Amino acid sequence: MGKVKIGVIGCGNIANNAHIPSYLNNSEAEIRYFCDCVPERAQNAVKKYQCGTAVSDYKEVLCDPEIDAVSVCTPNNMHSIITIDALMAGKHVLCEKPAARTYAEAVKMQKAQQESGKILNIGVVNRFNDAVNKIRQMIEDGELGEIYHVYVSFRSHRSIPGLGGAFTTNAISGGGVLIDWGVHFLDIVMYCTGDPSVKTVSSEAFCRLGKKIEEYTYVDMWAGPPQMDGTYDVDDSITGIIRTDGPVISFNGAWAQNIGENEMFIDFMGDKAGIRLQYGGGFVKYGVHNKMLSKTEYQFRSSDMFQNEIDGFVRCVQSGEKLPSNIDITIKTAEVMEGIYQSARLHKEVEF
Amino acid sequence: MGKVKIGVIGCGNIANNAHIPSYLNNSEAEIRYFCDCVPERAQNAVKKYQCGTAVSDYKEVLCDPEIDAVSVCTPNNMHSIITIDALMAGKHVLCEKPAARTYAEAVKMQKAQQESGKILNIGVVNRFNDAVNKIRQMIEDGELGEIYHVYVSFRSHRSIPGLGGAFTTNAISGGGVLIDWGVHFLDIVMYCTGDPSVKTVSSEAFCRLGKKIEEYTYVDMWAGPPQMDGTYDVDDSITGIIRTDGPVISFNGAWAQNIGENEMFIDFMGDKAGIRLQYGGGFVKYGVHNKMLSKTEYQFRSSDMFQNEIDGFVRCVQSGEKLPSNIDITIKTAEVMEGIYQSARLHKEVEF
Amino acid sequence: MGKVKIGVIGCGNIANNAHIPSYLNNSEAEIRYFCDCVPERAQNAVKKYQCGTAVSDYKEVLCDPEIDAVSVCTPNNMHSIITIDALMAGKHVLCEKPAARTYAEAVKMQKAQQESGKILNIGVVNRFNDAVNKIRQMIEDGELGEIYHVYVSFRSHRSIPGLGGAFTTNAISGGGVLIDWGVHFLDIVMYCTGDPSVKTVSSEAFCRLGKKIEEYTYVDMWAGPPQMDGTYDVDDSITGIIRTDGPVISFNGAWAQNIGENEMFIDFMGDKAGIRLQYGGGFVKYGVHNKMLSKTEYQFRSSDMFQNEIDGFVRCVQSGEKLPSNIDITIKTAEVMEGIYQSARLHKEVEF
Amino acid sequence: MGKVKIGVIGCGNIANNAHIPSYLNNSEAEIRYFCDCVPERAQNAVKKYQCGTAVSDYKEVLCDPEIDAVSVCTPNNMHSIITIDALMAGKHVLCEKPAARTYAEAVKMQKAQQESGKILNIGVVNRFNDAVNKIRQMIEDGELGEIYHVYVSFRSHRSIPGLGGAFTTNAISGGGVLIDWGVHFLDIVMYCTGDPSVKTVSSEAFCRLGKKIEEYTYVDMWAGPPQMDGTYDVDDSITGIIRTDGPVISFNGAWAQNIGENEMFIDFMGDKAGIRLQYGGGFVKYGVHNKMLSKTEYQFRSSDMFQNEIDGFVRCVQSGEKLPSNIDITIKTAEVMEGIYQSARLHKEVEF
Repeated sequence: MGKVKIGVIGCGNIANNAHIPSYLNNSEAEIRYFCDCVPERAQNAVKKYQCGTAVSDYKEVLCDPEIDAVSVCTPNNMHSIITIDALMAGKHVLCEKPAARTYAEAVKMQKAQQESGKILNIGVVNRFNDAVNKIRQMIEDGELGEIYHVYVSFRSHRSIPGLGGAFTTNAISGGGVLIDWGVHFLDIVMYCTGDPSVKTVSSEAFCRLGKKIEEYTYVDMWAGPPQMDGTYDVDDSITGIIRTDGPVISFNGAWAQNIGENEMFIDFMGDKAGIRLQYGGGFVKYGVHNKMLSKTEYQFRSSDMFQNEIDGFVRCVQSGEKLPSNIDITIKTAEVMEGIYQSARLHKEVEF
Repeated sequence: MGKVKIGVIGCGNIANNAHIPSYLNNSEAEIRYFCDCVPERAQNAVKKYQCGTAVSDYKEVLCDPEIDAVSVCTPNNMHSIITIDALMAGKHVLCEKPAARTYAEAVKMQKAQQESGKILNIGVVNRFNDAVNKIRQMIEDGELGEIYHVYVSFRSHRSIPGLGGAFTTNAISGGGVLIDWGVHFLDIVMYCTGDPSVKTVSSEAFCRLGKKIEEYTYVDMWAGPPQMDGTYDVDDSITGIIRTDGPVISFNGAWAQNIGENEMFIDFMGDKAGIRLQYGGGFVKYGVHNKMLSKTEYQFRSSDMFQNEIDGFVRCVQSGEKLPSNIDITIKTAEVMEGIYQSARLHKEVEF
Repeated sequence: MGKVKIGVIGCGNIANNAHIPSYLNNSEAEIRYFCDCVPERAQNAVKKYQCGTAVSDYKEVLCDPEIDAVSVCTPNNMHSIITIDALMAGKHVLCEKPAARTYAEAVKMQKAQQESGKILNIGVVNRFNDAVNKIRQMIEDGELGEIYHVYVSFRSHRSIPGLGGAFTTNAISGGGVLIDWGVHFLDIVMYCTGDPSVKTVSSEAFCRLGKKIEEYTYVDMWAGPPQMDGTYDVDDSITGIIRTDGPVISFNGAWAQNIGENEMFIDFMGDKAGIRLQYGGGFVKYGVHNKMLSKTEYQFRSSDMFQNEIDGFVRCVQSGEKLPSNIDITIKTAEVMEGIYQSARLHKEVEF
Repeated sequence: MGKVKIGVIGCGNIANNAHIPSYLNNSEAEIRYFCDCVPERAQNAVKKYQCGTAVSDYKEVLCDPEIDAVSVCTPNNMHSIITIDALMAGKHVLCEKPAARTYAEAVKMQKAQQESGKILNIGVVNRFNDAVNKIRQMIEDGELGEIYHVYVSFRSHRSIPGLGGAFTTNAISGGGVLIDWGVHFLDIVMYCTGDPSVKTVSSEAFCRLGKKIEEYTYVDMWAGPPQMDGTYDVDDSITGIIRTDGPVISFNGAWAQNIGENEMFIDFMGDKAGIRLQYGGGFVKYGVHNKMLSKTEYQFRSSDMFQNEIDGFVRCVQSGEKLPSNIDITIKTAEVMEGIYQSARLHKEVEF
């Protein structure tokens, strides 16, 4: 086949910062459509990138028989709808994370993938991050021994995005800090520890600091500024414990908390050695060597994980290759997240 | 009454570093006995402190009608036995923490206190720490708003005490890092947040790094060195989540872990402000003031918490005063700890 | 009225870095003239900003009946002349700080304002700085108790601007570090402590390090390089004490000194708490809370003080609003500065 | 003559920490009397140092014809009385700083010295400090050019000594932070810049933070703890400007202030170079070299300034040598201090 013809559906931040430039860098791909329900956004993309056609209805993209694949970069509430439509229309799909707002939606997407036989990858982009892959390799090689506990910290002082908007409206996003940040952290854990199956989840979620929108104090706001008459009904912080058939996972996450530290890391605790990964950065390995305690920092050239993700997707479309970001694997993360929100709602542990 | 006559039962570290010097500094107290099942230890104390009589059987102390009160500073397995005997002999008791190895033992101690009408305080010494009391006051004054979540971190790289000895033998100690360190941290949380009642506990405990005693690598060992043929059957690390009728409490603790950070703190997360207490040190308050985010460090003179504890106990003996360290309040911490160990054994959440 | 039509008189640093971009950002303002006695500068502004007409005689601007207001951004010696002409021509005026070279000139400007009834604001831009306003609010709210002493430090190692040029020629600038930097610092003090009246001033000024222009050693020079045959007859450092009906103010200032520290701050000493403001940056509050000494740092979003100043001026023109930067209030700072230079000349205290 | 026979009058901190050990180290001196109006203190000294006789009336010391010299180490209010009595009794005197509570008292002491012909040195011990002497030498050698301005900072966050006691009772001490700390700083300036004559002083003193003794918050207190029913009527902070026939001196001092920085230094500003001396520590020289700005730190072995002071005094007694600490020179510092307090009382400048 020739170049993979792409439609980008949803022309917001993640499309402009990640998907589009990566497709443009890939000589096997060609963007044919920019689609956004806000027509101006699609038109701006056409102008800026000097290619493609601007449309506002994603079905136009799906009707074009020349299109091979689409990137779904919309708010979370449209993920499953567009993805399923696209698969049924015979298109391969790269859908941004989280797969969907709920596990039920994700399951429908998986079924559509199976029925259509097309590729469905989820944008769990950290599976294409070099540091993450190096850790995964070290665990697989047995360097850490048995990983019995992973502690996940995605805690920030003030980082609620677009307070009052799509990010903080449950009907659109499906959740707050867990579904926005936690999905990445948990997916890294799943990926590095062999995608274990979940047995129990006990958690609590808090919707506190963003509740009175006008009183929320912050320095910078991503996807801001706040909409004073908007909705805020999602988790700004969350905590819990997950038992799996692999390691126990405990976690604390916060988009906002009254502790002024940004602690964004994952601790892999093995019985031979351990690793602390700074999210988005490097990692340190703590071990034992010749009866000495050792602490090792690593330096390495890092490739662009978004480019890797897009290159991988284009390759899948061309060859049928199945990546670790495919729906059958990543749906487990959706399941865990469903369990977390369910336990938080019930205020008791849920079993799988 | 005249001076309070004291018998010190158990002449190890905690007696020599804390109880004995504090009694000597208190002009209302007089140590009459040093008791230890290792006769040499009791004799050394008599020599060093130039007072009292050395005995090896604690019942000798209890038989002396002149003795008003005893400090129980033995390993955990003897706490309930000696405390109950002492109360029944009409003595007031200050028993080192934890109250006992198990909740059942603690309940028996409480019953003996009720029957005897004597004072029974537990050595939850942080209730006499100035920083802790200042935090408690700030919470009570509403400065933090509602405390909805407390995260407790008692994680150290390498700190297993006396590997193979009393501390790491479950039959003697009743547990590892939770019962040795966690008791202090959880007791601070209970004390500062109004001693809430526990509703559910889900936790997992790990016995990993000390298991092969000869392979355990460390730099310093408190209560060491390792006994190569000793027992190691307790938790070296632990994690979990506790729901109460007050805040949710989540925790990570480790005597030993393959993460080379010592993170010993408690985060009180309120909806108005938050506090991070460095265990054994100061604290920082994070809040909001005139639409600014604020970070406040405090300086203050600190009194000796062990002296405060002993002075308080002596005062109780003289006046019948009831302190926040009395058994009726502190038994709640024993109950929580029981729940944590039970959930860890069952690998599922327990409800109260 | 429609958009406010503006003439910018003087197209040097402060015009290009502050006034012009802020007018361009204000949808209610429209720049019609760029005026500079160096024709090239005015022409460059027209080219760069794609608007307005370039003129070299400010009277042309004043003659245009469509012009509502002017920004006076010339060297200090022209401030009073142009401002008075502009007011008499019926224009509103925003005049850069200092109001004038001397108090006498400032008084004439004030009279012209009163006669004309037009707005006359002085460019004491720190009155539009968020940190300054937050401090002022805290003082007004009584958080610091009574401010009894303010210490003002505007000391730099090597910062004489344009050595030999307009800045260092007394006939043009009216003074050195005091009139260039001190005016900002003293104005902040006046503004934050309720614009108190001055009672006595005792001070000494030094003209030392720039005197032999060719020997002056420096790393960078703002408004430089040195003109070897230029004039240097102003204060490069200054010190003194001011009694007011509010706090006592003591100060040390230096454009250049043989102490290699840049200490640019204001200490507000109250009997309840104190604040150190880092000039152009944030501030720290030192207080007492529950018998502890506290140190609090604040984080907040800062708006652009120059934009605020210009927006405020445009609003004044439209509505007649009187801002704290109007001549009747800011003339007090001119009076203090006059007193400082007078005391330094007489080598004794002057009384008001 | 044989060994110099010494009487130590006043056996408090400065005697025990400085005078006595230095006499004991000097093979030419012999302590014959320890005198204190609190008999126990004198007796303790005899016991501790195993020499001399304990007396409680200083006149007993003065009556002993064998005594050559006395150290006056009492509170400030007794300095002039005892010193004058001693001189009239034919004894040489080393009197602790400040010479006296007031200039008038100091003048009487100077007259008594002149009439008696005996040595009268004041304990301006920094004149025997190596760093101070090195700076003095550099200034004398012209390395700094002309010193035109000295800025003196003796500011601390919380350091009121013995709140409510002798230090803070004006009738005993004659003043607060100026007379206790300022005397050292000003004396260093006088000494290093050739003991210039004072022309004017303008200053303000503040008695704020110690006023409500029970509300004063601190961490440690020298000469403490506070006496809740004691007196506090001295300056806890002070500021001013001094013109001399040498450099201008400006100063800020605080035993206590609501700025949490300890800034204890003297800046000597010369037109060739400058020096910042950290009080009690080292110094840094800022200069120019080959058109470069230079910053030079010095390291050197330091002798004990108290030992030097005592050795010098003993030498004076033996040889009649006149040291820079003799009353005729140091009385100038007393005069400056008198002027500072007078100006602060009158709220206007005083001329000499």
